[in-house]
Amino acid sequence: MSGRLIVIGLGPGEAACMTAQAVEALARADWFYGYGPYVDRVVALDDPRRVVSDNREEGARAREALALAARGECVAMLSGGDPGVFAMASAVCEQIERGPEAWRALPLEVVPGVSAMLAAAAACGAPLGHDFAAISLSDNLKPWALIERRLQACAGAGLVMALYNPISKARPWQLGVALERLRDVLAPQTLVIFARAAGRPDEQITTTTLAQARAEQADMATLVIIGSEETREVTRPGQASLVYTPRFAPGWDPESKHSAC
Amino acid sequence: MSGRLIVIGLGPGEAACMTAQAVEALARADWFYGYGPYVDRVVALDDPRRVVSDNREEGARAREALALAARGECVAMLSGGDPGVFAMASAVCEQIERGPEAWRALPLEVVPGVSAMLAAAAACGAPLGHDFAAISLSDNLKPWALIERRLQACAGAGLVMALYNPISKARPWQLGVALERLRDVLAPQTLVIFARAAGRPDEQITTTTLAQARAEQADMATLVIIGSEETREVTRPGQASLVYTPRFAPGWDPESKHSAC
Repeated sequence: MSGRLIVIGLGPGEAACMTAQAVEALARADWFYGYGPYVDRVVALDDPRRVVSDNREEGARAREALALAARGECVAMLSGGDPGVFAMASAVCEQIERGPEAWRALPLEVVPGVSAMLAAAAACGAPLGHDFAAISLSDNLKPWALIERRLQACAGAGLVMALYNPISKARPWQLGVALERLRDVLAPQTLVIFARAAGRPDEQITTTTLAQARAEQADMATLVIIGSEETREVTRPGQASLVYTPRFAPGWDPESKHSAC
Repeated sequence: MSGRLIVIGLGPGEAACMTAQAVEALARADWFYGYGPYVDRVVALDDPRRVVSDNREEGARAREALALAARGECVAMLSGGDPGVFAMASAVCEQIERGPEAWRALPLEVVPGVSAMLAAAAACGAPLGHDFAAISLSDNLKPWALIERRLQACAGAGLVMALYNPISKARPWQLGVALERLRDVLAPQTLVIFARAAGRPDEQITTTTLAQARAEQADMATLVIIGSEETREVTRPGQASLVYTPRFAPGWDPESKHSAC
């Protein structure tokens, strides 16, 4: 049996954002599984090796791909961004654990990619330059109360937050409520970034404050970054503003590496 | 003035882990600034365009690069992994904010890369498959008490943690103390991953438990991942174990998308 499953991160969207390792892995594959828009990026529409499915069918998609790999095929499972961040790598591992023994004997490769939050951060400066958290606002797979608890714990501890899956047709109210809960903990002038299609030609970065931020500023293609108290905006003549979080805590001088208090 | 500064993420180490965008940006540069081992990856040792400096001189390195860009040169600032995660992008933004007006007028590009935590996660399965935090254990730039508070807040909220800068000659005790504090919050069987040189030919992944983990298992090239209560290990015949964090909270059935409680 020579079958294997390769979970491949395609990065934020443009072919130039893919790693050479991902391009090489794509060249080895006999089949390409994934959510349609991701498969569209790298496999022609009339290619018979495409197997596309809806973005809410991760479990079934993983099982089908594993079954095909167990029959000796080299199967690629495609993810946008990085496959290990709210994406297919975990779904595949779940099915390997639950499935037949043959699936556990299969070689599995995970090819990392540039995740959406890294592309979003690069597009506006360095908002993730200090401690941060990545939190999914989707309550499909966890209770909403747990999401609120995590948002408030991270905000209270001074972490910047990258919010994945902020809004969709099926989850219209979650981002608005999340912003409300964050207003209980963070100052009104805390910076909020709406990074839509980061790393793609239609990229759109909007920086606002927590007081001004509205859920309607996000859609399914948006990554939302909530700054910490330290996150700063630098206006520039003739250039877009930079948003960054300093590497040092307040009162610490980065040059002397001692407290300036 | 046609000068510009490009902060480039080289990914975890192998050339194949670089994006095409990073390769293209390197080709445009007149000068290459960075910590020696990063510059060594992409610029020959006898190349006169190399400007290497120690890894504790980020501020001075950023100022020198900005001054050269302001004189009209295309200057590359190299980072391992992703430049926005505990790396040079934030250091550059700091100096742009503090420096002369001419630096704010310069075009700045940040080219994202595959960060160490994504490479480490890909090497062992999908430990970052659910909500997680990235925390630096370096107390050069923030007080140790703040680091402990963040570790305990994130652990208490059920987030997986990727620990950057776990240990060095100058910071020998921090990881050991961090593990002690985490033992106050997390169960002894919580999984801990020591990912050394992830994404490089000498990659070494060690999975253990919080009870068994020892600081000596890490060095400067190690990324440490602390699992949540949900993080699981799947043993496989003839294959390395997989470590992953399920996409769903305990008691939630990922197939029905309803609570099974």
